[in-house]
Amino acid sequence: MSERLSRAEQVFPALIWLKNYNQHIFKADLLSSLIVIAMLVPQAMAYAMLAGLPPVMGLYASVIPMILYAIFGGSPTLSIGPVAIISMMTFATLSPLFELGSPVYIQAACLLALMVGIISLLLGLFRFGFLIQLISHPVIKSFIIASALLIALGQLKFIFNIPLQSNNAIEFLESFIQYFSYIHFASLALGLFAILFLIYLPKIMQHPKIKFRFKGHQFISRAVPLILVVLSIITVFYFHLQNIGIKTVGEIPSGFPSLSMPFWNLDLVFKLLPGATMIAMISFVESLSIAQATALQQRSHLNSNQELIALGISNISAGLSSAFPVTGSLSRTVVNADAGAKTPMAGVLSSLFIVIVSLYFTGFFKDLPLAVLAATIMVSIWKLVDFKSFSETWKYSKVDGIAMWITFLGVVCIDISTGLIIGIISTFILLLWNISRPHIAVIGLVEGTQHFRNIERHQVKTDPHILSIRIDESLTFLNTHTLKDFLINEVSKKKELQHVIINCSSISSIDLSALEMLEEFDIELTKLHIKLHLSEVKGPVMDKLKQSNWINHMNGFIYLTHYQAIQQLSKKEK
Amino acid sequence: MSERLSRAEQVFPALIWLKNYNQHIFKADLLSSLIVIAMLVPQAMAYAMLAGLPPVMGLYASVIPMILYAIFGGSPTLSIGPVAIISMMTFATLSPLFELGSPVYIQAACLLALMVGIISLLLGLFRFGFLIQLISHPVIKSFIIASALLIALGQLKFIFNIPLQSNNAIEFLESFIQYFSYIHFASLALGLFAILFLIYLPKIMQHPKIKFRFKGHQFISRAVPLILVVLSIITVFYFHLQNIGIKTVGEIPSGFPSLSMPFWNLDLVFKLLPGATMIAMISFVESLSIAQATALQQRSHLNSNQELIALGISNISAGLSSAFPVTGSLSRTVVNADAGAKTPMAGVLSSLFIVIVSLYFTGFFKDLPLAVLAATIMVSIWKLVDFKSFSETWKYSKVDGIAMWITFLGVVCIDISTGLIIGIISTFILLLWNISRPHIAVIGLVEGTQHFRNIERHQVKTDPHILSIRIDESLTFLNTHTLKDFLINEVSKKKELQHVIINCSSISSIDLSALEMLEEFDIELTKLHIKLHLSEVKGPVMDKLKQSNWINHMNGFIYLTHYQAIQQLSKKEK
Repeated sequence: MSERLSRAEQVFPALIWLKNYNQHIFKADLLSSLIVIAMLVPQAMAYAMLAGLPPVMGLYASVIPMILYAIFGGSPTLSIGPVAIISMMTFATLSPLFELGSPVYIQAACLLALMVGIISLLLGLFRFGFLIQLISHPVIKSFIIASALLIALGQLKFIFNIPLQSNNAIEFLESFIQYFSYIHFASLALGLFAILFLIYLPKIMQHPKIKFRFKGHQFISRAVPLILVVLSIITVFYFHLQNIGIKTVGEIPSGFPSLSMPFWNLDLVFKLLPGATMIAMISFVESLSIAQATALQQRSHLNSNQELIALGISNISAGLSSAFPVTGSLSRTVVNADAGAKTPMAGVLSSLFIVIVSLYFTGFFKDLPLAVLAATIMVSIWKLVDFKSFSETWKYSKVDGIAMWITFLGVVCIDISTGLIIGIISTFILLLWNISRPHIAVIGLVEGTQHFRNIERHQVKTDPHILSIRIDESLTFLNTHTLKDFLINEVSKKKELQHVIINCSSISSIDLSALEMLEEFDIELTKLHIKLHLSEVKGPVMDKLKQSNWINHMNGFIYLTHYQAIQQLSKKEK
Repeated sequence: MSERLSRAEQVFPALIWLKNYNQHIFKADLLSSLIVIAMLVPQAMAYAMLAGLPPVMGLYASVIPMILYAIFGGSPTLSIGPVAIISMMTFATLSPLFELGSPVYIQAACLLALMVGIISLLLGLFRFGFLIQLISHPVIKSFIIASALLIALGQLKFIFNIPLQSNNAIEFLESFIQYFSYIHFASLALGLFAILFLIYLPKIMQHPKIKFRFKGHQFISRAVPLILVVLSIITVFYFHLQNIGIKTVGEIPSGFPSLSMPFWNLDLVFKLLPGATMIAMISFVESLSIAQATALQQRSHLNSNQELIALGISNISAGLSSAFPVTGSLSRTVVNADAGAKTPMAGVLSSLFIVIVSLYFTGFFKDLPLAVLAATIMVSIWKLVDFKSFSETWKYSKVDGIAMWITFLGVVCIDISTGLIIGIISTFILLLWNISRPHIAVIGLVEGTQHFRNIERHQVKTDPHILSIRIDESLTFLNTHTLKDFLINEVSKKKELQHVIINCSSISSIDLSALEMLEEFDIELTKLHIKLHLSEVKGPVMDKLKQSNWINHMNGFIYLTHYQAIQQLSKKEK
């Protein structure tokens, strides 16, 4: 797909793959869609519950958004729909404003999806896709770990069957201590069984000694959550477990909602705006990084602005079809790709299956125990809690490690959105802090070569009349004073000094503050009969310097190489 | 002074100059102190008025702070005392909270000085002097221009003798339109005369044709404001100008206040904290840049943390001696240095003269017209309004130019502190924005050399199997996606590609986000049978990379020079 795309293909990437669509591709897509659907049904219902919404809304969220992404999106395998982190953020946004599960809450969830969609669409149309880079890897990793932890904690309320708070770990602990004595042991037993089932069944099936050697093995291992769901429904139904206090999903309306605008007014929009913005950002980060992971394999064009537009349209449709915010799901996308999906048609097919489920099988899920659904969430989300990455990050870079801890503590101790914002801001501050502490070295000639090295690390030749300095950072207002202090101190040390040469090989730009510092410093040096020179100035920096006055008035010279500078300046003395 | 300082000399820099103090130095100091005092008396009173305080407080603010700076400060010529911008900021902080000139207002001004002092002292003790670099030159320039403009506008209320607002230009215009018809023409005439006197008398005195050829010429030209003040007092006194509505300074208490703690409570402290922080920052920026301007001449050690401590102690003493926030004055420092001051003793002497004025001559200033005092402020402040620097900055750098305009509009249209904060934040955002758009080039070999250049700008040799890339910025999360997009696009273009080499000569650091991107990219490339190599990695970056796992698993190599990489990789193919 390296040829140039037509205008229509840029707007509707679906046109690219539809051109060559055939029976073989369809078979591959159909197979993978069946595998994905086995994961999608329990996930969709569980994530709706996580967002504080009726499980059926998870099904709604898996249909139209997926179909629209297939038309507008660039990734062939990305599976769009309900996702744990986004559902958690939806819950965090709505729960402080409205009563959980009330009609207003549900309407607000739809409105939130609509707003997330509009924000994403606008960002994409105005080409703000680059904004994704504002969030660094350590922050996003730490955010995911901390959110997963909060999500797992939050599910304990269904397993213990007590009203636990889970906006942050402190609230959780407080409410846990308060309701500790009310733990419902039948629910707990069921939940624990479900967790063990989900963890160990796939392991047993993959154990080398007990190898299941039939064709559908991979499919069954992925369908474990679905098997559990079906088994638990049957158990509840036959043994009337509701009678011993096991809570279930309850009556689910069948049929499929018609498109409708959710209730809105300006006041509500303003209340939801911060949450919607955060959700739009995170859903974009998640979705794009998942899509990128598979993009190179297909040598496909993946345009971040087009992805924002596709995600925006998907979320708008979610808002209009009684669903809640959606994004690309890591687990389902990986399974989809592994199962051999070739085009987004696989996604379209899986959403058609969901329609069938919504129309004819919702009654079946009435007896699904909440503790089992919570267990599926806990097991799938726990894979994201990777504490090892804290120590690995810390080992590579203290700055990145600090950002990770700040984000983690922010999310766990305050709340999911505040923690994310604090984490993002901390990375900016740490980056600026790093820029303000550039590496500056006095350099000398390595004898017998034309190379210059730090005089403190290497044995080098220096001249008492010449001070050579190298700075390993672009010059900005943030490091101007550091450089000036350094220069003043070095100059004050050397009584016989006649020349100062700054090696500019690592300087990619010089801002006005730095330029004026150099200019002032040159004037001061001139009064002391010392000349300031530059060497190895890069092309773009030189272009800029030519725009300034200083370059015409400076007393020193600009040398192509540092070696040349030293040679000429030592010669002059003799 | 390049020898090592003792511990005592670090804490009390005064010990350094006291060691060698003698009669000759004293004579030089005495002379310059006399010249400075002629400027200081009218300035001190005018700036107190600018802060909304009784003029006598300006005299108080010029005594103890100066003496303490002489003991603790590092600059021999810096003149500490009331300064226009800081007085304006004091006014902006206090006037929304208290009734102008009321006893509470005056007490709050003392408390503000005390808080500014404590903030500066703490920042100095904890070595936060580097914080000065947070404010870029364009922001500080623009801030000074905009504040000077607001100060000049604010003085018009004394010249027109109508109650004009001057927190921002919009308020000013509104109140001007409202009170336009009440302009008091006698005050206006006096003010205009004073302005013309202040502008043209020094010019006439310096005119080559009318050269005053006596020894005290320089002194007289600097004493012009003092001459004007004395003349106007005599005029008002003899002609009883109060009778025609000319407002004067009025009764000034003689004597000198005893040290006392200003009234305070926690509520008040919290209200003043934002203002105090801003004043502490700006007073530090002003003071240090003035001190630095003369530091190199004396080859003196100027330690920014020690300067913060000295400034802190000065302001604390200002707060305890019924004065208001002080800092280094540009105009007086320059005059002091030009007049030959050798040590801070010059400052001590000038403060002793102020004590004499406060004790015996305050009665004399009772008849000083406010319009004249306002005229001295306007003329001296107008020198700071340098609109030319907007176009010069814009010419050198659009980014710096944008920061300048944002600061200017913020100060002029909102208020002095908000404008400054907006300006500072805008520079951070613009800097991050610049980092996120690094210059990336595909490079090729300049034939007959070992140099590599941008293929778009130069005629170079490339190999269809090898992609060479150079990025002119350290790799951080802010530019990781830009680099990745660039790489993915370039790789997708070349069907025969076998090697990608990233030239790292301009990369001073690689953060975790960038490292992981490279790692992922390497994995994706490997699946396409393409190898990723690095060349010309700097020492500190290499040290960091060795801490990561990737470097051990990477499929490509790290080459010392790009030329070597190309040579070896082309050889292998053959």
